[in-house]
Amino acid sequence: MTTAPQTNPVERILMGPGPSTVPHRILRALSAPTLGHLDPQYLEIMDETCAMLRQVFRTQNPLTFPVSGTGMAGMECVATNLLEPGDEAIVCINGVFGTRMKDVMERCGATVHAIEAAWGDTFTHEQLAAALDAHPRAKLLGIVHAETSTGALQPLEGLSALCREKGALLVVDAVTSLGGHELRVDDWGIDAIYSGTQKCLSCPPGLAPVSFGERALAAMDARKTKPQSWYLDVSMLRKYYTGGSGGGGRVYHHTAPINMTYALREALAIVLEEGLEARIERHRQMHLRLRAGLESLGLAYIPKHSLHPLNCIHAPAGKDEAALRKSLLTDYGIEIGGGLGPMAGKALRIGLMGHTATTRNVDLLLAALRSLLA
Amino acid sequence: MTTAPQTNPVERILMGPGPSTVPHRILRALSAPTLGHLDPQYLEIMDETCAMLRQVFRTQNPLTFPVSGTGMAGMECVATNLLEPGDEAIVCINGVFGTRMKDVMERCGATVHAIEAAWGDTFTHEQLAAALDAHPRAKLLGIVHAETSTGALQPLEGLSALCREKGALLVVDAVTSLGGHELRVDDWGIDAIYSGTQKCLSCPPGLAPVSFGERALAAMDARKTKPQSWYLDVSMLRKYYTGGSGGGGRVYHHTAPINMTYALREALAIVLEEGLEARIERHRQMHLRLRAGLESLGLAYIPKHSLHPLNCIHAPAGKDEAALRKSLLTDYGIEIGGGLGPMAGKALRIGLMGHTATTRNVDLLLAALRSLLA
Repeated sequence: MTTAPQTNPVERILMGPGPSTVPHRILRALSAPTLGHLDPQYLEIMDETCAMLRQVFRTQNPLTFPVSGTGMAGMECVATNLLEPGDEAIVCINGVFGTRMKDVMERCGATVHAIEAAWGDTFTHEQLAAALDAHPRAKLLGIVHAETSTGALQPLEGLSALCREKGALLVVDAVTSLGGHELRVDDWGIDAIYSGTQKCLSCPPGLAPVSFGERALAAMDARKTKPQSWYLDVSMLRKYYTGGSGGGGRVYHHTAPINMTYALREALAIVLEEGLEARIERHRQMHLRLRAGLESLGLAYIPKHSLHPLNCIHAPAGKDEAALRKSLLTDYGIEIGGGLGPMAGKALRIGLMGHTATTRNVDLLLAALRSLLA
Repeated sequence: MTTAPQTNPVERILMGPGPSTVPHRILRALSAPTLGHLDPQYLEIMDETCAMLRQVFRTQNPLTFPVSGTGMAGMECVATNLLEPGDEAIVCINGVFGTRMKDVMERCGATVHAIEAAWGDTFTHEQLAAALDAHPRAKLLGIVHAETSTGALQPLEGLSALCREKGALLVVDAVTSLGGHELRVDDWGIDAIYSGTQKCLSCPPGLAPVSFGERALAAMDARKTKPQSWYLDVSMLRKYYTGGSGGGGRVYHHTAPINMTYALREALAIVLEEGLEARIERHRQMHLRLRAGLESLGLAYIPKHSLHPLNCIHAPAGKDEAALRKSLLTDYGIEIGGGLGPMAGKALRIGLMGHTATTRNVDLLLAALRSLLA
């Protein structure tokens, strides 16, 4: 017999690039008794979850649901359902997640035309219009709203008009913006979008909310081949997630992560109780408070247009950034993130996402940095 | 503002085809504070989880870990990593999950040779040897150990010798057998295997334990193309899950479902505390007890070789099986399953998996059936 110690993780303050700190109320929901995935009560909980997801995405899209995997499964779900061999796609790369989107879409058999900006920069609509002009056969344009690797915020308003003019779908990565930044799926004409639960929704990781609009559904209906992923095949998933509303029955596809659905439902209820506008404003206020404090410590932001939930700064000159992060973790129980890719060792990433974005946490982190950098 | 009611699921006794009833101890672990996915404490919890998974799979395979999705993601992970366009595979179909395996493998670009048995039947080694003879180019033979749709148990011992003789990998679906039936990955020469957490481990759904042996790793290393799934690409996942042991650092791939890992770790600790042999014997005893009771009620088993954790019987003659299941759910809070595919409306599926497999539950269900069928 193996005697394992208890599962007893310490209580960190999660101020990294995600997961964010999960409120007790969500952890409590997570541990509610497990129902069967076809139990009428579970289906009701799932329907409520999807309805609240529509509110948080600001969309009327019937096909809005949580994919049974973490954020990258959401990216893969969108790619595998919208693309097939022979398709072309435009992907905007200014950090890790654009780079990954290209890889994921190429694995779907698509020819991907990458347009690039420096890490930390964003794309102008002129650049995007030029890319759409240069690649008239592109079935979609994929872009990251909130680049978690660099902290850059990409403006999206007005972009869908450019895409529609060229017949391309607008695909958006909103992993780090959903629930923490203004994001209007219908008003902005976004055709397909994916996110994660562990960022500004402050739910544990495990689900990837997605939403598909009418044009995306039409593209899927026009496919010549099956999506290469069975697990993420929306033509089957929609019979489970929306089967009840059309009068037809639900069709079993796979066993959904039941308890994670409870947690997401609770997380969304918390978002809507606070109010989306108020929540987004709170993220802005906490970002400004942190920014003022960091700049007073001589720490400079990398992106010109910084996200509010994710603050990417140059690592303090002459300091070992890994040792700094280790001290924060060990002495303060605070997790922050290091740089990714070309920014490894050169950047710090501080998350102020969801439940983490409080005056208490901002001021504690600033006090800790003041002490450690003294 | 939307005011949503509390997430307050009723406490069912889950005696269907999975999920099974989750013990409170696992739910409590599930709700422990969320750590970051690169936190040293989380990596330790994950390493312990993988070590315990090896014990439960009875394998020394270093590459044994939980895929970040439910059981079907495990099937897809094995298929997408072992197969590429141009490959051939043999898939044994005697129920829903063999049928799905064929679909999943075809989506990987493989030519799949299906061999079929009647639903409820199993395959003899003569049939399997003939299939291997008929398709000498087959890269793998995929077979379901425990067919959840029919309740049939497929003997696996000795099969790997046949596969190795022909140079084919042995791929096994053990979703419903892991932790509830004898299963010896190394002794039986299984090259790749996947399971789920929500069956005989009595953990909520959300992870898919997998294990790959040396021959499977060699096949992956010899690939000419990238696996079509980025999310499930083992060449990257192994740097995260086994990166620590080789002296090199862990490489971030995706955010793992942290809290689900806590739950799985606790579930595996419970399995090992009970002892694998004792647990398997308990499943056998409970199956025999249920079987005697069902047969005394005139209810007959469908498969010749029945699983212990999943009991598939003919629906009672002259009764509406859906109404019977509804009464069990409403009046007793007991979930059992109906038939799938050609067995829909004709079969009942009663799960005695993990925490559900107790004298109390067996006798309660028999009492309920006695009353409802009177």
